Amino acid sequence: MKVIVNVFLKEGVLDPQGKAAHHALTSLGFEGVNDVRIGKQIVLDIDASDKAEAEAKVKEMSETLLANTVIEDYSIEIA
Amino acid sequence: MKVIVNVFLKEGVLDPQGKAAHHALTSLGFEGVNDVRIGKQIVLDIDASDKAEAEAKVKEMSETLLANTVIEDYSIEIA
Repeated sequence: MKVIVNVFLKEGVLDPQGKAAHHALTSLGFEGVNDVRIGKQIVLDIDASDKAEAEAKVKEMSETLLANTVIEDYSIEIA
Repeated sequence: MKVIVNVFLKEGVLDPQGKAAHHALTSLGFEGVNDVRIGKQIVLDIDASDKAEAEAKVKEMSETLLANTVIEDYSIEIA
């Protein structure tokens, strides 16, 4: 089963990657760019009997390894 | 307007981050993990009069800066 985890820095946490991309886009002449935030998208192929089991498994993986829950939020999408 | 760009390594290009996460999950005792791929999700807030203009603008940003189109594919989602 394919499961997608999106991991983003929490609001208020400085996003240096996003800031750098924002600055680069502006200096390349792109106008009307108000904000840029960059996060990780993790695509997992896992064995699970149903969606609930897949979600529970990936939630545990996210809490344990995939996201640093002190500074990051994550969302889980069953594809 | 909010636009999301997902940037992933092309099929066949080694994904060291994904491999490392896959190995870590397995050694942490998670079973049934067949594959892990990690890409970037870029969330842009841009000024655009309509969806078509937003898509065209972000396509140009992606080709110019946000994705390395030699080794990466990207997809654009207008949120």
